[in-house]
Amino acid sequence: MENQQILLASRPDGVVIPENFELATAAVPEPGQGEMLLQTIYMSVDPYMRGRMNDMKSYVPPFQIGEPLQAGIVAKVVKSNGGKFPEGTYLTGMGLWANYMVTGGEGFQPVDPDLAPLSYYLGILGMPGMTAYVGLKGVAELKEGEQLFVSAASGAVGQVVGQIGKNMGCHVAGSAGSDDKVAYLKDELGFDEAFNYKTSDIHKATRAANPNGIDVYFENVGGPQLEAVINNLNFNARVALCGMIAVYDNKLEDMPPGPRNLAILVGRSVKMQGFIVFNYPDLCKEWIQVGAGWLKEGKLKYRESVADGIENAPQAFMGVLKGRNFGKQVVRLADD
Amino acid sequence: MENQQILLASRPDGVVIPENFELATAAVPEPGQGEMLLQTIYMSVDPYMRGRMNDMKSYVPPFQIGEPLQAGIVAKVVKSNGGKFPEGTYLTGMGLWANYMVTGGEGFQPVDPDLAPLSYYLGILGMPGMTAYVGLKGVAELKEGEQLFVSAASGAVGQVVGQIGKNMGCHVAGSAGSDDKVAYLKDELGFDEAFNYKTSDIHKATRAANPNGIDVYFENVGGPQLEAVINNLNFNARVALCGMIAVYDNKLEDMPPGPRNLAILVGRSVKMQGFIVFNYPDLCKEWIQVGAGWLKEGKLKYRESVADGIENAPQAFMGVLKGRNFGKQVVRLADD
Repeated sequence: MENQQILLASRPDGVVIPENFELATAAVPEPGQGEMLLQTIYMSVDPYMRGRMNDMKSYVPPFQIGEPLQAGIVAKVVKSNGGKFPEGTYLTGMGLWANYMVTGGEGFQPVDPDLAPLSYYLGILGMPGMTAYVGLKGVAELKEGEQLFVSAASGAVGQVVGQIGKNMGCHVAGSAGSDDKVAYLKDELGFDEAFNYKTSDIHKATRAANPNGIDVYFENVGGPQLEAVINNLNFNARVALCGMIAVYDNKLEDMPPGPRNLAILVGRSVKMQGFIVFNYPDLCKEWIQVGAGWLKEGKLKYRESVADGIENAPQAFMGVLKGRNFGKQVVRLADD
Repeated sequence: MENQQILLASRPDGVVIPENFELATAAVPEPGQGEMLLQTIYMSVDPYMRGRMNDMKSYVPPFQIGEPLQAGIVAKVVKSNGGKFPEGTYLTGMGLWANYMVTGGEGFQPVDPDLAPLSYYLGILGMPGMTAYVGLKGVAELKEGEQLFVSAASGAVGQVVGQIGKNMGCHVAGSAGSDDKVAYLKDELGFDEAFNYKTSDIHKATRAANPNGIDVYFENVGGPQLEAVINNLNFNARVALCGMIAVYDNKLEDMPPGPRNLAILVGRSVKMQGFIVFNYPDLCKEWIQVGAGWLKEGKLKYRESVADGIENAPQAFMGVLKGRNFGKQVVRLADD
């Protein structure tokens, strides 16, 4: 039994490259008194991690060079030394890019393996699903029947955003980065409109997909898509700023220009708000109930990309930053 | 007695030019039954008017070609044909770029010429003052002792923003477009820090002026100043989007790039909100009381630029768009 880990070898100078990571092998740690040894079953790779690779002020401290990166994980308690949860319990929480870790259990919650597949707790019932729900309900205050647009619509968050919108009777449109993804949005998830932003004139396509304007924009990408959306916002529109994949990967000097039309936000009384899902714990709990219910009723569909083995985690993460995943990207480190 | 008016001759193709305006002379109109003839004493020229020169969706309809432009005015009722207010009353409201106009009185409010000079009802006690108060209290929710930054700080709105901040015990910093204006902010208005954005490295100067970061940014300009501010925002910062002089003057293709660092709004849970002062009528009324009280107590200072004669209104307006005014720009059309 050995403990493989992915360490941060260096901070990216712009685009993330394989050399920013190092695969290291360590002994499996021993839990001290009151601690547990967790074996990671699944770990999540998410765009927000790109921000934590920089040494800059944010809501969580940056990853440290020479240390394992952190990730949301689903893990099994394989040894408990008087720890908070008994052996055999499945937990989710913020862990490491590692096969094993020791924890006192702080920030970990038990999950029910019978309610949904374990990996779902990193996706539709985990942070991405909660992010969708918090962004729509807590930040953008989406109302029944409004006009909703979402970018990165087939991603881990976007696919949930669109389905919540449809379940609320909204007109839902989205953009994604391949024709396959667009077909998935329209044919399987029930989006009213969707387009491939890589092969469209983004201004024309955004307008055509939102014939009655946009009341709520769930922003996942930044860049030209944001500018195109701003031109189509309705009065009193709300923009929930979730992530901005298009700009994570860059130094300020190298970043693409921001939207040139922010002045529109003034005349149309638009609210644009960044948010951190963890600041809305009540809505997060509510989502697990709402989401699990909708899954059972068949009112939510869900798609994952699963990579196998910790050694493939950096590649899976870089793929997410480039939009190569289709659905929520997770990495399987052990059999569930 | 003749009625001079400024008509919109053509819509600007980018920067506003004198040829967009036409000085026309018409007969003084006669008030019908229930109407009043108003003589304009002062009219206001403001950056937001640039937006109304375009034919685009906004909170108020665009100016119409061949028609007089509109402006906030202070006027005297010189003839009443059974109108709402008696002859001799001073009113403020939305009027025309004209010496005379007829109105039923809708949207006009009487003002007290003894409480403050008449022109103040277009400035510190009028829309600009209300905009400052609404932006800080209603939108940005400024709290005692916070870190406040304002751009176009010596302008009609900015100078009130800064003084409200000082009266609330905040650290107040601002940027302006000349050394004279900077000296005025620091020496006369009591700003803690101020800099000339035209002669500074805007990123360095913004950082230096806000050593504890920025909790509230009152945004008047857009462009590079916004980008520099975003880098210095604190967690849970609020950005009140009031106007964006730097970008009003341009077509989308010609506009300067927007802020490249909007992704920071996500990690720091920032709210950025455009607003229309008229949507906060209660705070507007509150401001007249608060502002008049502070003026009497000497806790508010106020500076105006006064142009004389309606024929000089276009030039005064173009000067505002270029930052040539020092303090609130008004045009005097008749003796007060």
